[in-house]
Amino acid sequence: MSHFPPAQASFRAIDVIRKKRDDVELTREEIEGLVNAYTRGEVPDYQVAAWLMAVVLRGMTRRETAALTDAMLRSGEVLDLSSIPNRKVDKHSTGGVGDKTSLVLAPLAAAAGLAVPMISGRGLGHTGGTLDKLEAIPGFNVNLPVAEFRRVLEICGCAMIGQTAEIAPADRKLYALRDVTGTVESPYLICASIMSKKLAEGIDALVLDVKTGSGAFMKNESDAVFLAELMVETGERMGKHVVALITDMDQPLGKMIGNALEVIEVVKVLRGEGPEDLRELCLHLAGWMLHLGGASKCVAEGTQLSSQLILSGKALEKFRQMIELQGGDPRVVDDAKLLPQAQQTWQILSPKSGVISSMQCEQIGTASVILGGGRERKEDSVDPAVGIVLHKKVGERVEAQEPLATVYYNSGARGERARRLITDSIQIGDTPPAARPLIHRVIQKSGETH
Amino acid sequence: MSHFPPAQASFRAIDVIRKKRDDVELTREEIEGLVNAYTRGEVPDYQVAAWLMAVVLRGMTRRETAALTDAMLRSGEVLDLSSIPNRKVDKHSTGGVGDKTSLVLAPLAAAAGLAVPMISGRGLGHTGGTLDKLEAIPGFNVNLPVAEFRRVLEICGCAMIGQTAEIAPADRKLYALRDVTGTVESPYLICASIMSKKLAEGIDALVLDVKTGSGAFMKNESDAVFLAELMVETGERMGKHVVALITDMDQPLGKMIGNALEVIEVVKVLRGEGPEDLRELCLHLAGWMLHLGGASKCVAEGTQLSSQLILSGKALEKFRQMIELQGGDPRVVDDAKLLPQAQQTWQILSPKSGVISSMQCEQIGTASVILGGGRERKEDSVDPAVGIVLHKKVGERVEAQEPLATVYYNSGARGERARRLITDSIQIGDTPPAARPLIHRVIQKSGETH
Repeated sequence: MSHFPPAQASFRAIDVIRKKRDDVELTREEIEGLVNAYTRGEVPDYQVAAWLMAVVLRGMTRRETAALTDAMLRSGEVLDLSSIPNRKVDKHSTGGVGDKTSLVLAPLAAAAGLAVPMISGRGLGHTGGTLDKLEAIPGFNVNLPVAEFRRVLEICGCAMIGQTAEIAPADRKLYALRDVTGTVESPYLICASIMSKKLAEGIDALVLDVKTGSGAFMKNESDAVFLAELMVETGERMGKHVVALITDMDQPLGKMIGNALEVIEVVKVLRGEGPEDLRELCLHLAGWMLHLGGASKCVAEGTQLSSQLILSGKALEKFRQMIELQGGDPRVVDDAKLLPQAQQTWQILSPKSGVISSMQCEQIGTASVILGGGRERKEDSVDPAVGIVLHKKVGERVEAQEPLATVYYNSGARGERARRLITDSIQIGDTPPAARPLIHRVIQKSGETH
Repeated sequence: MSHFPPAQASFRAIDVIRKKRDDVELTREEIEGLVNAYTRGEVPDYQVAAWLMAVVLRGMTRRETAALTDAMLRSGEVLDLSSIPNRKVDKHSTGGVGDKTSLVLAPLAAAAGLAVPMISGRGLGHTGGTLDKLEAIPGFNVNLPVAEFRRVLEICGCAMIGQTAEIAPADRKLYALRDVTGTVESPYLICASIMSKKLAEGIDALVLDVKTGSGAFMKNESDAVFLAELMVETGERMGKHVVALITDMDQPLGKMIGNALEVIEVVKVLRGEGPEDLRELCLHLAGWMLHLGGASKCVAEGTQLSSQLILSGKALEKFRQMIELQGGDPRVVDDAKLLPQAQQTWQILSPKSGVISSMQCEQIGTASVILGGGRERKEDSVDPAVGIVLHKKVGERVEAQEPLATVYYNSGARGERARRLITDSIQIGDTPPAARPLIHRVIQKSGETH
């Protein structure tokens, strides 16, 4: 039988739980008290679990959301990058399939004179993770100490690492608890988790890429817009320039899915090549980063400048430099064969002629996880070589027996499971589907226009 | 930093949490699985805490409530009283101030030939507890082993003990968790907690006394009715005869509050004396017990029979016998001085002439707790001697300087705090207030009338 001591510290916790349960707005002090006491281990998991469920079902006001974000942010270290004179800008995506824009944007914005101190995550569920992609580059170290992170940033203008123990420890503890208590799916908790980590980077501005569609966590555009508005307002309340783009994830972004394959596609985009949707989204996001960072007068000028930095080779040069500074082999930029290679490939041929009418994007992401490109369980290791290359995208014409996709695999059983899933995920019809825009909407602080 | 292992058993728990969070009805198997795994220690507190909060905010269907009650009931031993030929009947009250009806009803129903296997609780918050009152009788043992409980029941037809480790262990574990996670206040969880324990007594019928008013946990009658209907339907679904009376707790029941004082008032009622409201409620509840237990053709006949059993002295004789069988001193029935006596008393005099217009009943209960008659913290011990005697009740006329109440105390500081609270709790006006009925409503299985 469990025993719950009448601890002094938990007295306040129960009041905060009851208040949220009864739909009464919490004060900044109450939220801060709970977060700090939990981080210090003074409030037990079961009390915070009850509070989290009350937050999921009751929601939070904008003031509460900002207070929670702030308390989580200040639970750990906030990077002091004042020694770097450049404006600090970052981008964050809510996650999707084939979304490798971070690897393009960090060197691109650095080439424009901004500093990009990017702290990223690993693959989650059916989505890929920036850290897993970077680690496909032989030798690349995503676990730099803060001093080394700062040094890379000073030299090259961008650096990309994973979360450290010092950054927002409250988020790490809360996230682990949310994961096992059915309290992940709350826009307020998602907002506080993302924004607390990003603002701990010591940035001036942030561009948010909020995905919507069959491959996104938010399948409905209205849910994506709600989260985007929440994050923009929270960031602005905390004195940062924040914009959110609602972008399409109803099919994979670009044509390559899988860690090493995505690095190849990143290099293509940085060479001015690569698939149109990926290039367009990268240029648009870069335009916003440059504009918010003061490197351009408007978004359009930022996009144009980004395009020039690609054509001149300066962006690719930054990528090469960052790889080298973080211990990776920079020659992968010139020779894709230096990246991990899958042992086998399988062509998926179209069963009939027609037009690609839709893709079950989450299933394609799951197929990549099954191949070994992501984790089915937390403790799994990732196979950097495996993945999928799409030869056709939604709206394109295909003839019978023409290749739809190529599967890169190292295990026959996994390859077979993935192949079936991908085949089922691609629908072929007679007429082109209604076109979905790549950028659905731009969410800014109310009253501002760009 | 806490670590949550991806345990096999918790896989199902998270699904049950998510389902309740999303307002989807749980199956009997899901509820049973969660309760059993929690009781066995296979599901951690934090997962159950999140689930409990989801239940508080989402509610439960009648089917879910019955399944939860059943799972909690079957988490431990269900008493097998088949060796006792008499019909087994019990009464349960949701708790109030001066509510000592259990001590009257158990011997009264036993005198009518029924068996009353009563398992009771201790004082909670501002309310008194049956076990604390029984322990005011020198020597009375409320911790009988089950075999001894059965023996007392066989000999005298009634026995009164506290919850044992074998009865509904899931409820004890869940109640402790609810207490510290702000999840006590849910009619569904209250219903399952009460009904699982009562039905584990192996009874045929149950009379519920659901209190409403300023001294009850449910201040609003509509909340009391909702809980009553839930408990009646849950009991009937489980094949028991159950009725609920919504009764008044807007002022203390009877005139005496405090453990030894309440034993004195119980003896008075069993002698055919005592205050009118207490006598009337006891006779009415007894009428229902006798009727549901088959000892009378209708409630009115049961009430009349109960009245005769008091006048003949048979009910008091049963009380005396039960006290003796449970190790207590039966002479307290004849000599109140054998009960614990407070060292000091204080008369509270009326500041003016008028009519008692209302009493803050919860505050009077709190005054009794402050005196030492209840527990301010779980680990406190109870002083059986202290308490309050009211000389006037709502609607009665009082003259200036006439005694309103007497405080029985053993500590001057506590006596002073209680005196001030009681003085503030009694309002005196010019005209009599609108009368409140003693019995507000009777809730039975739909379609039945008595």
